[in-house]
Amino acid sequence: MTPTRTETDSMGAIEVAADRYWGAQTERSIHNFPIGRSRFVWQRPVIRALGILKRAAAEANVALGELPADVGSAVVAAADEVIDGRLDAHFPLVVFQTGSGTQSNMNANEVISNRAIEMLGGTLGSKKPIHPNDHVNRGQSSNDTFPTAMHIAIVEELAGRLFPAVEALVSTLAEKAIANADIVKTGRTHLQDATPLTLGQEIGAWADQIAAALAGVEQTLPGLYDLAIGATAVGTGLNAHPAFGERAAERIAALTGHPFRSAPNRFVALASHDALAATSASLRTLSGALMKMANDVRWLASGPRTGIGEILIPENEPGSSIMPGKVNPTQAEAMTMVVAQVYGNDAAVAFAASQGNFQLNVYKPVMLHNVLESIELIADACLAFEEHCARGIEPNRARIDANLGQNLMLVTALNRHIGYDKAAAIAKSAHKSGSTLREAAIASGFLTAEDYDRWVVPIEMTRPSIG
Amino acid sequence: MTPTRTETDSMGAIEVAADRYWGAQTERSIHNFPIGRSRFVWQRPVIRALGILKRAAAEANVALGELPADVGSAVVAAADEVIDGRLDAHFPLVVFQTGSGTQSNMNANEVISNRAIEMLGGTLGSKKPIHPNDHVNRGQSSNDTFPTAMHIAIVEELAGRLFPAVEALVSTLAEKAIANADIVKTGRTHLQDATPLTLGQEIGAWADQIAAALAGVEQTLPGLYDLAIGATAVGTGLNAHPAFGERAAERIAALTGHPFRSAPNRFVALASHDALAATSASLRTLSGALMKMANDVRWLASGPRTGIGEILIPENEPGSSIMPGKVNPTQAEAMTMVVAQVYGNDAAVAFAASQGNFQLNVYKPVMLHNVLESIELIADACLAFEEHCARGIEPNRARIDANLGQNLMLVTALNRHIGYDKAAAIAKSAHKSGSTLREAAIASGFLTAEDYDRWVVPIEMTRPSIG
Amino acid sequence: MTPTRTETDSMGAIEVAADRYWGAQTERSIHNFPIGRSRFVWQRPVIRALGILKRAAAEANVALGELPADVGSAVVAAADEVIDGRLDAHFPLVVFQTGSGTQSNMNANEVISNRAIEMLGGTLGSKKPIHPNDHVNRGQSSNDTFPTAMHIAIVEELAGRLFPAVEALVSTLAEKAIANADIVKTGRTHLQDATPLTLGQEIGAWADQIAAALAGVEQTLPGLYDLAIGATAVGTGLNAHPAFGERAAERIAALTGHPFRSAPNRFVALASHDALAATSASLRTLSGALMKMANDVRWLASGPRTGIGEILIPENEPGSSIMPGKVNPTQAEAMTMVVAQVYGNDAAVAFAASQGNFQLNVYKPVMLHNVLESIELIADACLAFEEHCARGIEPNRARIDANLGQNLMLVTALNRHIGYDKAAAIAKSAHKSGSTLREAAIASGFLTAEDYDRWVVPIEMTRPSIG
Amino acid sequence: MTPTRTETDSMGAIEVAADRYWGAQTERSIHNFPIGRSRFVWQRPVIRALGILKRAAAEANVALGELPADVGSAVVAAADEVIDGRLDAHFPLVVFQTGSGTQSNMNANEVISNRAIEMLGGTLGSKKPIHPNDHVNRGQSSNDTFPTAMHIAIVEELAGRLFPAVEALVSTLAEKAIANADIVKTGRTHLQDATPLTLGQEIGAWADQIAAALAGVEQTLPGLYDLAIGATAVGTGLNAHPAFGERAAERIAALTGHPFRSAPNRFVALASHDALAATSASLRTLSGALMKMANDVRWLASGPRTGIGEILIPENEPGSSIMPGKVNPTQAEAMTMVVAQVYGNDAAVAFAASQGNFQLNVYKPVMLHNVLESIELIADACLAFEEHCARGIEPNRARIDANLGQNLMLVTALNRHIGYDKAAAIAKSAHKSGSTLREAAIASGFLTAEDYDRWVVPIEMTRPSIG
Repeated sequence: MTPTRTETDSMGAIEVAADRYWGAQTERSIHNFPIGRSRFVWQRPVIRALGILKRAAAEANVALGELPADVGSAVVAAADEVIDGRLDAHFPLVVFQTGSGTQSNMNANEVISNRAIEMLGGTLGSKKPIHPNDHVNRGQSSNDTFPTAMHIAIVEELAGRLFPAVEALVSTLAEKAIANADIVKTGRTHLQDATPLTLGQEIGAWADQIAAALAGVEQTLPGLYDLAIGATAVGTGLNAHPAFGERAAERIAALTGHPFRSAPNRFVALASHDALAATSASLRTLSGALMKMANDVRWLASGPRTGIGEILIPENEPGSSIMPGKVNPTQAEAMTMVVAQVYGNDAAVAFAASQGNFQLNVYKPVMLHNVLESIELIADACLAFEEHCARGIEPNRARIDANLGQNLMLVTALNRHIGYDKAAAIAKSAHKSGSTLREAAIASGFLTAEDYDRWVVPIEMTRPSIG
Repeated sequence: MTPTRTETDSMGAIEVAADRYWGAQTERSIHNFPIGRSRFVWQRPVIRALGILKRAAAEANVALGELPADVGSAVVAAADEVIDGRLDAHFPLVVFQTGSGTQSNMNANEVISNRAIEMLGGTLGSKKPIHPNDHVNRGQSSNDTFPTAMHIAIVEELAGRLFPAVEALVSTLAEKAIANADIVKTGRTHLQDATPLTLGQEIGAWADQIAAALAGVEQTLPGLYDLAIGATAVGTGLNAHPAFGERAAERIAALTGHPFRSAPNRFVALASHDALAATSASLRTLSGALMKMANDVRWLASGPRTGIGEILIPENEPGSSIMPGKVNPTQAEAMTMVVAQVYGNDAAVAFAASQGNFQLNVYKPVMLHNVLESIELIADACLAFEEHCARGIEPNRARIDANLGQNLMLVTALNRHIGYDKAAAIAKSAHKSGSTLREAAIASGFLTAEDYDRWVVPIEMTRPSIG
Repeated sequence: MTPTRTETDSMGAIEVAADRYWGAQTERSIHNFPIGRSRFVWQRPVIRALGILKRAAAEANVALGELPADVGSAVVAAADEVIDGRLDAHFPLVVFQTGSGTQSNMNANEVISNRAIEMLGGTLGSKKPIHPNDHVNRGQSSNDTFPTAMHIAIVEELAGRLFPAVEALVSTLAEKAIANADIVKTGRTHLQDATPLTLGQEIGAWADQIAAALAGVEQTLPGLYDLAIGATAVGTGLNAHPAFGERAAERIAALTGHPFRSAPNRFVALASHDALAATSASLRTLSGALMKMANDVRWLASGPRTGIGEILIPENEPGSSIMPGKVNPTQAEAMTMVVAQVYGNDAAVAFAASQGNFQLNVYKPVMLHNVLESIELIADACLAFEEHCARGIEPNRARIDANLGQNLMLVTALNRHIGYDKAAAIAKSAHKSGSTLREAAIASGFLTAEDYDRWVVPIEMTRPSIG
Repeated sequence: MTPTRTETDSMGAIEVAADRYWGAQTERSIHNFPIGRSRFVWQRPVIRALGILKRAAAEANVALGELPADVGSAVVAAADEVIDGRLDAHFPLVVFQTGSGTQSNMNANEVISNRAIEMLGGTLGSKKPIHPNDHVNRGQSSNDTFPTAMHIAIVEELAGRLFPAVEALVSTLAEKAIANADIVKTGRTHLQDATPLTLGQEIGAWADQIAAALAGVEQTLPGLYDLAIGATAVGTGLNAHPAFGERAAERIAALTGHPFRSAPNRFVALASHDALAATSASLRTLSGALMKMANDVRWLASGPRTGIGEILIPENEPGSSIMPGKVNPTQAEAMTMVVAQVYGNDAAVAFAASQGNFQLNVYKPVMLHNVLESIELIADACLAFEEHCARGIEPNRARIDANLGQNLMLVTALNRHIGYDKAAAIAKSAHKSGSTLREAAIASGFLTAEDYDRWVVPIEMTRPSIG
């Protein structure tokens, strides 16, 4: 049997594995919430955020005279190990626990308390000289610390993981747009042949749409910079120094390099998480933009012989276990599956966001989990797509030229010269007879061959000009 | 000014337009809930269901000695006019009202009471000799009548509107499957060329998928046959004759021709509407199947010259205000927009279904509205699609044959003879060199021309056989 | 039989009711899309937006020499009638049509053309001297006009309908917060008694949350100001004067008073509608905030005798058809049903937003419809809630005081003085014995009666201070 | 450096860790899809299902003469190790890969091939004498094997995990219903006091609603029993023995004990996954029922002093890091967070279900993942809730009696005797004056004290009877 020690809380005593820093409340949570343990244990971003928060709180309390300097130093030292990842194995709790994240806050309090006690030569579980509630949680409540950690984790993941990954993809697409700026090709609306554009314009639209959607995510950052810390139990700040919230937020800003600040209404900061809902929604919109791009890529690459086939994409792996030589647009498929997941995650977040009551929304952990997962998946998928697909997109010039050559919608260039009704008659005649547009146009008698060649110039149809 | 009369309820007196049968509570609702009046006034199916319910309740009460026969007859006569649609103009209320539908139940009580009073020569608003609560609502509560009416309306709309419409589409598709049973064409997986199948198999899969999804809707009918009537306020049946629920359900079954019955647990029948949630979800799945079909149709019809173009669909209207002669797959577009709407409606229903408290779920009207709207939209869209698109689908044989001829995945037929690895080498060689599969196969030395012609026979690849 | 006249388009001739201005394409759409006609005919905001767009386009074309001044004047005069609402009866089309809105664009072109022809004494249907395509649709495509009209309609509805309605509610709540700033009451977290706050703080949190969510909606306006006009068929601007997009946007800005401008990437403006998706998501977040408020209101008003009962809300109508004297929180129920609908509408929009292909997203009408409906419902519900509920919220002081008096969580004030563990022991003792907190505190021996009375002062627990 | 061996596929050679059985295609997938690796590696149910499938396929092929007996035996022996879990470490792939699950199918093929080769004394990576494609994948394609494994995994998880867990909860609730069958209490509709029912009726409604929702999940099993196996690449069954699908399905049925069978339309079985969508939707409905129950529990347990407080639930852990002695309904919170997640997962599944094209839906892995996760979470949450909450629910009789005593809605019993209008007047009078209902009734003059005591008997109001 694993050796244990006794830990206590207001419910009484409970045995904890001797080599773990957590205490009674964490241990109870493990027993009481065996829900989704295979996939829902909190990971690095959340643990790190809790460490940052606890360090910042200790520093603020010391500065305000609320905590002795030596106690504060011990808490900071232990919190630094939480921040660095050295104590990840001491954070065993899952998403599906109390809806305020109380048990994860206590997990942090207990681990930091015991680790600090150990550093100071004390006895684990004694709560002396560092008490998990009275010292580590000083001037705090789960109700304000957990949402504070939520914002820290999400901002760090957005800035450190999502933004660079999406920007890398946008950048590659933008380069491809430039590289293919002169390739005129068939446009398609309603999946039907339409007036021409360049391949560069087509790819550039992907880049711009994704970039705009990413800007939409960035627009939600200010809401995330507002921290609940200082609100304590219900928003009034009971038991916290009046300046604690501001000071702690300043420390968090300093530790992370992000402009965190104290929330303008702390009651709101506990009772609702609309900032997360907004971020989640912006991730959904971003993923929708990625879906448009991924779908265009796989349709344009469809074939190799009986699809559209206007672009070529990298062949990364055998496509089929039964059809020899088949190659599939697998990066696009992984991307669009990520999109479906992000849409689902967002639905969970939005549902949860609506369910607050009185002074607290008790869906905090599930909201945090889904936003972080969406960030991770989008970032990972963008990097994979960039490296294994976007970078290798090449035009299939033969196909592009052949398609453009037979596109009847070049007729649109005639509208200005002969009017819509006559132009329609020409296009319909060509469609019906199977002839080329040029043949049908000349046969119509509405214009001469010279007119046609002067008026119907695909490359000019891709530039804003009239003539 | 419109002439008015005075109506009263427990809140006091209020003026109502003299030419309307409704009473005080309906009038108050008009004033208190000016929400979405342009689009959310209850329509025929709900008004008719309320009429059926009120008639059945009166008949059951008379049979059980709970209502004098003459009072019952008067209520039945007035209810018949509600059923027939003659009094639709007297049902002015909207979806967004009290969450139990109380005001619409009272609307029915008041209109039937006043119309019955009028038939009997009494004074409108006097509540004599027919009282809206004591007589028309006898043994009932909004809490059991409104959900009963919900089930009646939905079952009638499913049976009378949805099923025939979807079946018509399935039937047309099945006919098209038979008509095209012998046309061998390229299969496509991952949007890439795959082994062949027949056009009949392809269209038949649409028909079968939709039919299976429709069967999934039908599977939810038993839940809808369970009626809340007899539960009264909280499920106990207080103030109703103990046999009232069963008797009323029998009458409703007789009046509608559907096997309605009393719910097995009446508390559940008020507090939750999982039967509606299940129906809504099945409509979502059905719509998803329609989306698959509609998307396949528009992609197969894409072109006319630079898409896949293997089928031709009716040209119903000019496709573009700027591109002359353009024709678009508009029926498919209307269909897929309906699908998006049905997905949204279902999200609203599922959200609402989760929000019951204690003895009542107070999202009844919004759930009813969305289920009915989904039924209406799917039915309308299927009929339009059947008439204006499915019926006119024709194979584009030239394109089908040309595509099949160049499909490298015919190589799969060689697996059994030379193994996957050699077959893959042949396909890759053909892909790289641009040659035909036959040329590459013979050049490989793995088989002879005779082998190839014996082994690679597209039509045989579409039939379950080995050789 | 209704007298008719013959109208024509590139498909041929078709009969149209003689007293209607629409032409052949509108008529075909009526026949081809009998989908949801009872509820989905376009309403005022969309018709007006089409009128504004067509007037602006004509003015821009005249200014750029693309349209003769007299033709332009005629178009402007007819468009003004569309703007004013005089021609609403001539816009019969529904949401579920072609996914680009082509038929509604042509409806506008046809109506304006015919009305202008009529004004000029011409023959309806002759297309002379004002041609629906060559003149009214000059330099335009449905692909750029319809999304332009979408943005115009949504911005006008947001500014003219949503913002004032929500602001009115926020304003009333803010007043109530001030009026109740001194009423100390029990806080509640996890639905359990928690440390106190003032009723003003509680109501103020609703106001601030809703205001912040409304600001989130406003944040999406810039994306809506970007107009597709000038893109024509695929984004290249083919057939439009190079300056047309900018000029038309300027005119639209002038006509509406909103800072519309030409979209930075016109390809994106046709192929995707992320701006709408973002607006829709922000409406969802706003509705989630309204749900929190509405739920708090009905729970705080629950009772009248066996619920929480800390606030009183207006009694607007009888609450039950069977329980005499019952009064229900019906405005809150209507509001939360609206929220469920808005969540559903947003799901439809987000789904649609992800489904663009190549140069066009063909879910434009369904996206427009759902965003407008959400705006309308939220606005209507906020006005009704403000007038019939929020304005009348009053504290139930007796209940508030009684509840506060027995709240064991006042113990939290002792943490700073005796530590969390001892304070917990006191609270548990009181809970177990049923005694008051004061009694249990004194009995514990950890503090004196004087200590208790000095340390546990509810009003001070609601203010940020320590001591 | 880890020692490696060379593996090959049609793309060429690649190095694989020497101690892993997987081959080239698995290795490529690891490199190409570093997406969500921390949470999305396939787990036991999927690996086991792949093992069952491969064993069944080998047995069927041997029986049909498609595979030599010794090859078959080797495949079966290796597949058994996959089934048993001994080779889990050799399945490293994640959800976000190719949308057909090809790489996971190949992972199974490669691992079984290499392990069988090893058992037979061959060289890993040689593909001799057991070839991953020609033998292990004989008569199969990823397109039919992966959906077959999906159905196997889901059915096993439903039967082995979900059903017992939910049934345990239902059973405990049903026992509680019986134990509390005689406790009369206040009913609540619209959160307002309503006519009485027993606590047993209230709890029984939870049990019955959940049981009905679970039956709804079971109703989706037949769709899951239909297996794609035998369809191979596009549904035609190319390269499989005509009887292979049926034989393999029989073997799967025998190995699992579930009545699996060959799908009626194999084209549908590849191109769409409506059976999964239906199961997912039924899990959503089930979770909605759990939400209703969990919300009722926490509201009924709200307090301890200023809420409803009619039931007591177990105190499992300290509720607050700042409020000493606070106990919260944490199991209910974990449950409702699970519900939010299940709603989100279902949204992902439904989205994916709509996105099939032609002969394949390429969202298979993400659909499988979300359905399995929902099953796991609901099951885990039900077990935790049953053990740590439901089992310990006890009535708070003092509170129940006190609440019932002041409930004005007992007035409803008077309707039958004095009519709704007079009863309403009595209730309103009591509400206004603060008197008891009995006092107000007698004071009204409509009835005597004796009448009142005879007519208003709460326990009788909970039973279906009139009198």
